[in-house]
Amino acid sequence: MLVVMQEGASEAHIQKVIDRLTEDGFDVHRSTGVIHTVLGGVGGPEDFDTAVFEVMDGVKEVHRIISPYKLASRAFRPQGTIVRVRDVDIGGKKVVVMAGPCSVESRDQIERAADIVANGGAQVIRGGAFKPRSSPYSFQGLGEEGLKLMREAADRRHLLVISEVMDSTQIPLLSAYADILQVGARNMQNFNLLRELGKIRKPVLLKRGISATIEELLLSAEYILSGGNYDVILCERGIRTFETYTRNTMDVSAIPVVKKLSHLPMVADPSHGTGRRDQVPPMARAAVAAGADGLLMEVHHDPDHALSDGAQSLKPDQYSELMDQLRMIAPAVGRTI
Amino acid sequence: MLVVMQEGASEAHIQKVIDRLTEDGFDVHRSTGVIHTVLGGVGGPEDFDTAVFEVMDGVKEVHRIISPYKLASRAFRPQGTIVRVRDVDIGGKKVVVMAGPCSVESRDQIERAADIVANGGAQVIRGGAFKPRSSPYSFQGLGEEGLKLMREAADRRHLLVISEVMDSTQIPLLSAYADILQVGARNMQNFNLLRELGKIRKPVLLKRGISATIEELLLSAEYILSGGNYDVILCERGIRTFETYTRNTMDVSAIPVVKKLSHLPMVADPSHGTGRRDQVPPMARAAVAAGADGLLMEVHHDPDHALSDGAQSLKPDQYSELMDQLRMIAPAVGRTI
Amino acid sequence: MLVVMQEGASEAHIQKVIDRLTEDGFDVHRSTGVIHTVLGGVGGPEDFDTAVFEVMDGVKEVHRIISPYKLASRAFRPQGTIVRVRDVDIGGKKVVVMAGPCSVESRDQIERAADIVANGGAQVIRGGAFKPRSSPYSFQGLGEEGLKLMREAADRRHLLVISEVMDSTQIPLLSAYADILQVGARNMQNFNLLRELGKIRKPVLLKRGISATIEELLLSAEYILSGGNYDVILCERGIRTFETYTRNTMDVSAIPVVKKLSHLPMVADPSHGTGRRDQVPPMARAAVAAGADGLLMEVHHDPDHALSDGAQSLKPDQYSELMDQLRMIAPAVGRTI
Amino acid sequence: MLVVMQEGASEAHIQKVIDRLTEDGFDVHRSTGVIHTVLGGVGGPEDFDTAVFEVMDGVKEVHRIISPYKLASRAFRPQGTIVRVRDVDIGGKKVVVMAGPCSVESRDQIERAADIVANGGAQVIRGGAFKPRSSPYSFQGLGEEGLKLMREAADRRHLLVISEVMDSTQIPLLSAYADILQVGARNMQNFNLLRELGKIRKPVLLKRGISATIEELLLSAEYILSGGNYDVILCERGIRTFETYTRNTMDVSAIPVVKKLSHLPMVADPSHGTGRRDQVPPMARAAVAAGADGLLMEVHHDPDHALSDGAQSLKPDQYSELMDQLRMIAPAVGRTI
Repeated sequence: MLVVMQEGASEAHIQKVIDRLTEDGFDVHRSTGVIHTVLGGVGGPEDFDTAVFEVMDGVKEVHRIISPYKLASRAFRPQGTIVRVRDVDIGGKKVVVMAGPCSVESRDQIERAADIVANGGAQVIRGGAFKPRSSPYSFQGLGEEGLKLMREAADRRHLLVISEVMDSTQIPLLSAYADILQVGARNMQNFNLLRELGKIRKPVLLKRGISATIEELLLSAEYILSGGNYDVILCERGIRTFETYTRNTMDVSAIPVVKKLSHLPMVADPSHGTGRRDQVPPMARAAVAAGADGLLMEVHHDPDHALSDGAQSLKPDQYSELMDQLRMIAPAVGRTI
Repeated sequence: MLVVMQEGASEAHIQKVIDRLTEDGFDVHRSTGVIHTVLGGVGGPEDFDTAVFEVMDGVKEVHRIISPYKLASRAFRPQGTIVRVRDVDIGGKKVVVMAGPCSVESRDQIERAADIVANGGAQVIRGGAFKPRSSPYSFQGLGEEGLKLMREAADRRHLLVISEVMDSTQIPLLSAYADILQVGARNMQNFNLLRELGKIRKPVLLKRGISATIEELLLSAEYILSGGNYDVILCERGIRTFETYTRNTMDVSAIPVVKKLSHLPMVADPSHGTGRRDQVPPMARAAVAAGADGLLMEVHHDPDHALSDGAQSLKPDQYSELMDQLRMIAPAVGRTI
Repeated sequence: MLVVMQEGASEAHIQKVIDRLTEDGFDVHRSTGVIHTVLGGVGGPEDFDTAVFEVMDGVKEVHRIISPYKLASRAFRPQGTIVRVRDVDIGGKKVVVMAGPCSVESRDQIERAADIVANGGAQVIRGGAFKPRSSPYSFQGLGEEGLKLMREAADRRHLLVISEVMDSTQIPLLSAYADILQVGARNMQNFNLLRELGKIRKPVLLKRGISATIEELLLSAEYILSGGNYDVILCERGIRTFETYTRNTMDVSAIPVVKKLSHLPMVADPSHGTGRRDQVPPMARAAVAAGADGLLMEVHHDPDHALSDGAQSLKPDQYSELMDQLRMIAPAVGRTI
Repeated sequence: MLVVMQEGASEAHIQKVIDRLTEDGFDVHRSTGVIHTVLGGVGGPEDFDTAVFEVMDGVKEVHRIISPYKLASRAFRPQGTIVRVRDVDIGGKKVVVMAGPCSVESRDQIERAADIVANGGAQVIRGGAFKPRSSPYSFQGLGEEGLKLMREAADRRHLLVISEVMDSTQIPLLSAYADILQVGARNMQNFNLLRELGKIRKPVLLKRGISATIEELLLSAEYILSGGNYDVILCERGIRTFETYTRNTMDVSAIPVVKKLSHLPMVADPSHGTGRRDQVPPMARAAVAAGADGLLMEVHHDPDHALSDGAQSLKPDQYSELMDQLRMIAPAVGRTI
């Protein structure tokens, strides 16, 4: 930790900061510059709160130089991580596509979806079983029955299954049916849930919250990793900005930044990232061109009558046209699809 | 709902929107302007997704004219709501002050805090019993023992107790000890929790999420109200902006806006709103001057050694000086403190 | 314009709004719904301020249904605009690359840059002649001498020249040397400058301000178009969000949105959009994949010793490697490069 | 400057950074920690670009420890600055109120405004003479005639005059009529204008841009101060956030932060800060309670028929009621009004 004292900070104020650093277990290195005195604290506790120093008299600013995350940092595994799920590698040479409806609605619907998804060349089918909605009167999902239907549809076509886990009590149920457990943007900082997911041995796809910094995303990943579950996949799905034309602003630039800061695979969800079907193909292409390890997309055989998220679900022909485009882009970044 | 068609939208596109509105149960009123055709949909379902129309061919924009919240709107109770908790009115003439440490740490600490809080003139003591932290190694709270200690300290001084509920399983325990249950900013859209809180008969203080719009805050309140629990208090505690000097930007302007749009009491938390002790007094004064019904603040007898949030906790003398200032400001807005 | 009255708005309030609409020259259509009365105003002045109605008693919300921009809207020219500059088409099948140093520094530097730029396959060389900097002691640009050097370097290699115009007094000078005049992000709402640029017959590249909505960008374009200059090219170069790892967040999603809302060509500047050399290639690729009509990028023969913006300038080999990748991506969107 | 190297940075990379620091004129202090090597650079040039180091191989992060502004910092004049304009002190014990219409429209209008403003107890009258609008067909202001009318109205009532300067060519004209020159939010980083304002000896009120950080505001002030003009007044007038109910989010928290970081007087403009007349009084009260040195507000004798900004102009009785409230609040912060 580096504590920069204000110009003209008194010796008494400097001493008080040194005392506090020492009290907290830091070795202190003092460097007296022309204008500012800088105090370096080495070897203290990992989870100290820098704000405590920021409000001390005479302090100008405080920098935590050791990243608050470790297991999630690129330095921990410079060569990058490949999360292997059955016979699918996420983070490897092949860009992995996960597609399917927002919610599982019926056997017929998920079977049709699975056909479209598999024919287009995706490796994973997605679909929600639990849909807590802003209105208590909206469709709430099929629950376990939905998971069962999706599992069967997937198995018939050699697809993997990804589905969202809403709280820690659902982990056993989801683990029984899904190959990858998805944590939604609103739960990115649900630390109880993250801690429990750290204890299981199922891959977890962790979505970035709509106002989460990249550092916060990596800190949440650290929570899972620190429990011993190393199979974490990160996902960009749109941040909140001042722009109102799209629901969210899909932050494509987060993809190369995360790839630089972390060894974990990073995928993108252009459906939630834009909220509009017509914006999904350009943003899916952009994500692959920027280096994403995969895509998570909503596809429905009849989006106009989807029970949820119809506006952002691709129609079957849009999806297959997009897959063709992606196959042309992937080689530009040394990938296949 | 109003659907504005694009300039030059074809009759076929217009008809398709009319058909879809009708299919969804709306009566349709068509108004053909010089440039744009506008379709008004009346009487359809309450929870339709406007995005479905936004992506239809020929549609320029869609406006939902009926607020998605009703019970939370000012029109529902134009005179405003007073939440009565034992003998304390929140939303009445008196500005209610809730103060105390971030976490209950020990009997000695909470007793000292209660002394300071009560002597300064607050009506409610605050303190956390469960502290899920970003690091799994940090202080996690005293749990039920902490609630017990705080309840005793409160009762001895005729104070009410407010404490945070982290998930729905904690509701019975919190209800046994606290007079007001607090929902943190990260849980503002935890709909499971909100639904359960709608079923109890304890006042709930609902904090605005750091990137939540005011409409989203009111929608979350609606979730609780719609369950039959009308004792909801709203709380501004800082939003995320591009400014980095403070952790959050406390949005004082949300106070008069919420008071205009909703009948619910609105309080402010300048401790989390700023994250820095030195910024708490000016923002507390601003909140009262802007019409807040109450304040939620962190006070600690020795903030430098608090186990959590020390940097944003007021020292005892700062707190009592601030209370004196607030007593001078309140009459300017027709209130007392 | 649509004025939605509040639930239970009094007849007197409704009448007052009708009177005001009539006074302003609107024909008024009244529609009385179950809950809300909606007043449609047709045919009034184009530049009325909707806020005047928003603050009237009984008004819930106001929607301006006619876009405040017309000449910039897609409806004005559905087939899209190609800006032809000498023998280069911007907005056509070929993705146009404009590259070069941040500032013209010397004859030697701009000649080397022109070599790199031309060899890589760009059509346009960029370079600043006037550099107002945050510090008055920094390099301020070579002025006319710089323009002369860049023009000569360009002509020798059959390149076009783009350079930034800082205020309206510089228009004649810039017009004498450059083929395209660039308006920087900070000047996006400098209406005096925009008005003067509307009077000339030189193509203008207009950059989006870092906190400008897409509608505001199109309104600024409208200013130039309404003066009679139809050769306007738009440019995304990063917006300000809460994320701090990159200086700006390059909003790739603005590209397809602008292409949908407007007929004007849209290019992207990943150098300013990210501020970091290592982030330029992925974001350049993403922009082309998302449908950008061109790229504006900083390239320097020795970025470590550039007099300005060295950190975001590509090295020669990075630039040529990137151009190769872009050539692979362009066909996926039906383009060449 | 502090350069923090990545964990495991190679000796070659560290040496390259040291070489570059040395080349740029810094003395280098190397500190080898358990995990990170930190390089301190002392005594180099003031305007180096930290980004140059950020993109070097092996560098984790760079901190500029010397504030990029000096003359604007609190350390430069710890006791604070009082800008004396004739017999009015801005930054002293009295909170200074500047009020008046958005634009000077006619002799009758400005005389009425001056009556209201003076009777309410303001010291300064405000009014725009040049109004570059988003639409070229809107009212553009009365120009010099407007300044003349406002000066006469002011002199008759012993008021000071503040008016906006749009570009550097207008400085002589504005200086002839106004006591304080105002720089609008869009011009906050118009460095040519700022430099010229540094050369005159008239007080300047500098408004914060809608997406400017506090540091950027102080850097712009530095531009004026460094020219020798020390009479700079800062002004908060709303920032752009994700919230859409108000045009801008008035950042009250910027007031105490600026007062801490800088010695310059800080005022607030709740009219532009909110854009809605009904939100002006609560935000004006909040600003004074938070420690603002003054207020800048729009008041019109008949806002419904104002030629510009009518929606955010106070009516005469709202203004006088507000002034009474402010007189009650000021003593709570040791001020008068």
